[in-house]
Amino acid sequence: MISNRDQVTQLILAAKVRKGLKWCDVAETIGLSKEWTTAGCLGQMKFDKAQAETLGKVFELSDEAVAWLQVVPYKGSLPTAVPTDPLIYRWYEMVNVYGTTIKELIHEEFGDGIMSAIDFSMDIQREQDPKGDRVNVVLSGKFLPYKSY
Amino acid sequence: MISNRDQVTQLILAAKVRKGLKWCDVAETIGLSKEWTTAGCLGQMKFDKAQAETLGKVFELSDEAVAWLQVVPYKGSLPTAVPTDPLIYRWYEMVNVYGTTIKELIHEEFGDGIMSAIDFSMDIQREQDPKGDRVNVVLSGKFLPYKSY
Amino acid sequence: MISNRDQVTQLILAAKVRKGLKWCDVAETIGLSKEWTTAGCLGQMKFDKAQAETLGKVFELSDEAVAWLQVVPYKGSLPTAVPTDPLIYRWYEMVNVYGTTIKELIHEEFGDGIMSAIDFSMDIQREQDPKGDRVNVVLSGKFLPYKSY
Amino acid sequence: MISNRDQVTQLILAAKVRKGLKWCDVAETIGLSKEWTTAGCLGQMKFDKAQAETLGKVFELSDEAVAWLQVVPYKGSLPTAVPTDPLIYRWYEMVNVYGTTIKELIHEEFGDGIMSAIDFSMDIQREQDPKGDRVNVVLSGKFLPYKSY
Amino acid sequence: MISNRDQVTQLILAAKVRKGLKWCDVAETIGLSKEWTTAGCLGQMKFDKAQAETLGKVFELSDEAVAWLQVVPYKGSLPTAVPTDPLIYRWYEMVNVYGTTIKELIHEEFGDGIMSAIDFSMDIQREQDPKGDRVNVVLSGKFLPYKSY
Amino acid sequence: MISNRDQVTQLILAAKVRKGLKWCDVAETIGLSKEWTTAGCLGQMKFDKAQAETLGKVFELSDEAVAWLQVVPYKGSLPTAVPTDPLIYRWYEMVNVYGTTIKELIHEEFGDGIMSAIDFSMDIQREQDPKGDRVNVVLSGKFLPYKSY
Amino acid sequence: MISNRDQVTQLILAAKVRKGLKWCDVAETIGLSKEWTTAGCLGQMKFDKAQAETLGKVFELSDEAVAWLQVVPYKGSLPTAVPTDPLIYRWYEMVNVYGTTIKELIHEEFGDGIMSAIDFSMDIQREQDPKGDRVNVVLSGKFLPYKSY
Amino acid sequence: MISNRDQVTQLILAAKVRKGLKWCDVAETIGLSKEWTTAGCLGQMKFDKAQAETLGKVFELSDEAVAWLQVVPYKGSLPTAVPTDPLIYRWYEMVNVYGTTIKELIHEEFGDGIMSAIDFSMDIQREQDPKGDRVNVVLSGKFLPYKSY
Amino acid sequence: MISNRDQVTQLILAAKVRKGLKWCDVAETIGLSKEWTTAGCLGQMKFDKAQAETLGKVFELSDEAVAWLQVVPYKGSLPTAVPTDPLIYRWYEMVNVYGTTIKELIHEEFGDGIMSAIDFSMDIQREQDPKGDRVNVVLSGKFLPYKSY
Amino acid sequence: MISNRDQVTQLILAAKVRKGLKWCDVAETIGLSKEWTTAGCLGQMKFDKAQAETLGKVFELSDEAVAWLQVVPYKGSLPTAVPTDPLIYRWYEMVNVYGTTIKELIHEEFGDGIMSAIDFSMDIQREQDPKGDRVNVVLSGKFLPYKSY
Repeated sequence: MISNRDQVTQLILAAKVRKGLKWCDVAETIGLSKEWTTAGCLGQMKFDKAQAETLGKVFELSDEAVAWLQVVPYKGSLPTAVPTDPLIYRWYEMVNVYGTTIKELIHEEFGDGIMSAIDFSMDIQREQDPKGDRVNVVLSGKFLPYKSY
Repeated sequence: MISNRDQVTQLILAAKVRKGLKWCDVAETIGLSKEWTTAGCLGQMKFDKAQAETLGKVFELSDEAVAWLQVVPYKGSLPTAVPTDPLIYRWYEMVNVYGTTIKELIHEEFGDGIMSAIDFSMDIQREQDPKGDRVNVVLSGKFLPYKSY
Repeated sequence: MISNRDQVTQLILAAKVRKGLKWCDVAETIGLSKEWTTAGCLGQMKFDKAQAETLGKVFELSDEAVAWLQVVPYKGSLPTAVPTDPLIYRWYEMVNVYGTTIKELIHEEFGDGIMSAIDFSMDIQREQDPKGDRVNVVLSGKFLPYKSY
Repeated sequence: MISNRDQVTQLILAAKVRKGLKWCDVAETIGLSKEWTTAGCLGQMKFDKAQAETLGKVFELSDEAVAWLQVVPYKGSLPTAVPTDPLIYRWYEMVNVYGTTIKELIHEEFGDGIMSAIDFSMDIQREQDPKGDRVNVVLSGKFLPYKSY
Repeated sequence: MISNRDQVTQLILAAKVRKGLKWCDVAETIGLSKEWTTAGCLGQMKFDKAQAETLGKVFELSDEAVAWLQVVPYKGSLPTAVPTDPLIYRWYEMVNVYGTTIKELIHEEFGDGIMSAIDFSMDIQREQDPKGDRVNVVLSGKFLPYKSY
Repeated sequence: MISNRDQVTQLILAAKVRKGLKWCDVAETIGLSKEWTTAGCLGQMKFDKAQAETLGKVFELSDEAVAWLQVVPYKGSLPTAVPTDPLIYRWYEMVNVYGTTIKELIHEEFGDGIMSAIDFSMDIQREQDPKGDRVNVVLSGKFLPYKSY
Repeated sequence: MISNRDQVTQLILAAKVRKGLKWCDVAETIGLSKEWTTAGCLGQMKFDKAQAETLGKVFELSDEAVAWLQVVPYKGSLPTAVPTDPLIYRWYEMVNVYGTTIKELIHEEFGDGIMSAIDFSMDIQREQDPKGDRVNVVLSGKFLPYKSY
Repeated sequence: MISNRDQVTQLILAAKVRKGLKWCDVAETIGLSKEWTTAGCLGQMKFDKAQAETLGKVFELSDEAVAWLQVVPYKGSLPTAVPTDPLIYRWYEMVNVYGTTIKELIHEEFGDGIMSAIDFSMDIQREQDPKGDRVNVVLSGKFLPYKSY
Repeated sequence: MISNRDQVTQLILAAKVRKGLKWCDVAETIGLSKEWTTAGCLGQMKFDKAQAETLGKVFELSDEAVAWLQVVPYKGSLPTAVPTDPLIYRWYEMVNVYGTTIKELIHEEFGDGIMSAIDFSMDIQREQDPKGDRVNVVLSGKFLPYKSY
Repeated sequence: MISNRDQVTQLILAAKVRKGLKWCDVAETIGLSKEWTTAGCLGQMKFDKAQAETLGKVFELSDEAVAWLQVVPYKGSLPTAVPTDPLIYRWYEMVNVYGTTIKELIHEEFGDGIMSAIDFSMDIQREQDPKGDRVNVVLSGKFLPYKSY
């Protein structure tokens, strides 16, 4: 019996390691970006029926698990409020150190409101650099203004 | 008597509102990006002597405050571990929802290591869009590999 | 010297009690809903120049305080993550007890996404009831869908 | 052996996904609002004997599970004090940003007391809107005054 | 300038110690129970005009402080979520050790609902006892049932 | 194998729902108050041999479980420091709002010391009231003075 | 104006350092143990009139401060739930590592109940030891049994 | 398969209750103090080979469990930072109320440094007292001075 | 089915105790330092294929477990933010007491930046000392400067 | 009036920036290592009379401040349990990632016990490296064994 999405994520991760799969190949198979595909496989997004069934074949999932992939999950991928993993912590640190800066500059340009984390996309790329390659990440989010009423 | 950088940040913010200044103009005056300049004025980065003195004139700071701008600050710009401000929270949410995705994709491309938050830069731009303008943010950080010993 | 919005909120609250003002009258004076006006006076929203100057007269604020009312504030009005005040706690309790219910029903109707807290309005009214009057609150937020990419 | 209500909630969720049920249909079957029905199925409310037995048929539950549905549960549906799920977080944010506003306006209208979260109902509806459909939520709670003694 | 109720509580406590007053005498002067009077003076309840003015004389408060006594305060009298003071901790311990017991017995007698902490009174008395006097506390709260809708 | 008291509490709760028992009847069977009996069955108190064996019959427990009922448990019945269940939260709120009041009034009557939560009893009764029945709770605890040395 | 005991503790500590006093001498002057005297001066215990007046002379306190020394304080001497100071942390560690051991051995000897922290005394002595002197602490607390009712 | 010390502690506790053993008898059997023996059986200390094998017979443990008893455990016996159990909480309260007192008196006698929690012993005894027996605890820890370098 | 690295760590620890292995011998077998080897076996680092297979033989792991050893783990080896284990706490205390000192001295020598915890190595050695042997730890991390942009 | 060590630390930091002093020069003046000197100036260690008086001249402190430098402070230099400053966080991360490794290796070499953080010294040096200079830190702490009793 599967009673939450976490159980499906565990099944996917086990299959991925056992079969030596790569996220970018999985993404290509279902025709979505590698960022969205990975987030979905890690239990943060839902898939439509066709995508879920393809993933079911890729990861050898039961019908029940495939059904769960089509349900909106309870989101949040980190086990603690302040992440302990060094890679993820660096992102938290960036929000902590630059958070008020980001806030000031977006408000200066757009006024009061937010940068959406829903109408949002992310693209992660390797940038060749002779002093050591860099990770380049482009984040794009719609600006949503507060409007008085 | 000034005994920590926070007091200087308070002076800068008070002057900024009182005089109606904009961060992008301040940045141009000292010849740095608006991101770095704002982070520094908000107490996250240190300035060299010439930059600090220029800022002293812009914000009408005392010599003591100008001296503090040249000292490495205790960093961290948020009052709580999970930010309450909606704009900054959306960034925390992005790390929370996409954190494991970012981790997986960087490791898939680069192996074990991190994306540096020190050898790092950020660029925030407005992207015109007929369905509503977007905030575009480019983050660039050097990849630092773990090497066994 | 005023170096953050909290100081202005304190000034407004002191004047309100000292002068015996009511939020609904203040709202009428500046021509906004009582909900937005109160949230703004409590440091959660910014006002435009005309509104801020009117508020300056109502609460006898200095020019510097009036300038701060026009700056986007760092939002968050509660001193603790779980509120201790019984009235506000009841709202937190409602989110805690009904949170997953709200999530399920919105997803059932709309699919994956959120109800915006930015493109959002609130209306609080008294409802006469022979068994004891009721507080009626209407919340309206735009649905923002996640779109895969 | 079933020793707490959570286990029944897990059984219900597993059956719901497996059988592709919708909350609004379940609600119609037992003759209660979709809000109350969902909250109850998610372990926040108790059902009477007839309702529980109907649910037992709908979700194919054992007699023991049906008995548990008639017991008052330990309430609280969220795994963390500050919710990580974006949809539920928006509600927490609304309480955080507007909490003191709600408090001020209810006290201005009613005096000291609270809006009940027990003698309370909620109605969630889709509002058609050309600029994007909206979620409309009406909350109704009895006002309970503090009386001195 | 007084900008929150805490400042008034500080003034009252300072005057109480300086003048050697007792809560039960203060209560008698304003004609309320000693429990309500003390809670109000400690910033948890509001007073009406006549009561506030009497307290103003008793504690030699300014007109501004007297005005604040008539405003509903942000409630919560403890500096930490788990109290450190031994007397108050014993009450927290009682809720922690007996909490589920209280819940079970009230539900067994009344069904689902709560014991109100708003329509509520408390009476604290000394009980003579040869083995050592006892503190007797009677708590009375209206039962508020959940009603399905 | 049973290795902690929680496992016995789970067995008791499962049996109670399965067999439709009431706490007040269980209490009568073992000849203790309903408050003490419930607290003990919920894992907060220990029973003597005869009581434990009687409970063993009532709840159909193994000899091992009966042995655990005679061992002093690690106490504390709530899963979080601030309870999420509405009924239990109201008690926590009472301690939070009235905590300093209780402290002041007990010290005014008795001097420095505490009201014992060990030499303590509790009695929960229904009080008929035309405006809605009330829950009446009498708490009685020995006063224990601090004595200087 | 003095409005809480902390302010008196600050005055005492300032005077103690300024005048180079020792706690054991202060204790002798007022005729109490050094443990009780220090705890009281640090804001954890109250003094009677004569003791308070003597302390007033020793630390050159105002009449108002002397009055506060005779009021029961809000207890708790540590700024964080887990102490950061190495000496105090070792005691917290002792409770953490040996806590369940202490519990088991007291229950084995006395049955269910507690060792009082109110009817309690402490004596701290230096023990000469050729391998390095030791701190010897004797704690004595009355055993208080739980009695069923 | 046993993969951590907690599992061994669970086995020991289950056997102790099942067989009705007492810690003081176990201690005598392995020739150590009852304090050390209990702490070790509760997973805080390691035993040497002979002691572990004796304990293996006493508690009927497998060879694997006996091997784990000889490995240094990850220490810390309490499930929460602030203990909920009343007996253990009284010790935490003692550290909280008297912590700064203990610090002041040890520093007054010994200078800067700590009382070791490693080179440490504890002895728990019953003290007969006509007014109610007392728990007497002697703690002895080597003083370790900070030495500048 | 293995679905996370923790499960592999548990298998390794169980095998290590069962077979009486030492980390330094394991390290020698796979040709890495004992510090890196231990960290990797405890789930903090990944191994290459040859190393993982050797470890698989040493600890008698399944092919699936060996595959997991080659995947970058979610790092963080401690169960709580403030460690409870005395040995590890001493390191946390060192960071707490000396943290600002380390910061000041590195900045004084190098300017703004960090000491890398990625391009980092550690060496732990016993130092003979007649007054008691010492643990000597050498930490070496590349300095990474902040560069303005 | 100075009533705690923090106030002296603030005075020292203000003077240090105002006068442009370096910690290594201060250390040389009072004849202690730069590590100890800095820790002491930041409020973690006490100084003897001669050292304190020298520091008084260096930082132009009042006699009262000089007296406070000779008193053992309440230690702990960080404002949050998990540090937000990137440099200090890297050390916390090192304890988090390598904590169980350090524990295993010290126990493997020395048996049960700890590495002292009191009988402890630290030396921070720059190491020239063509690929980027490194920070080298040597930590030396006496091993203190647990001895059974």
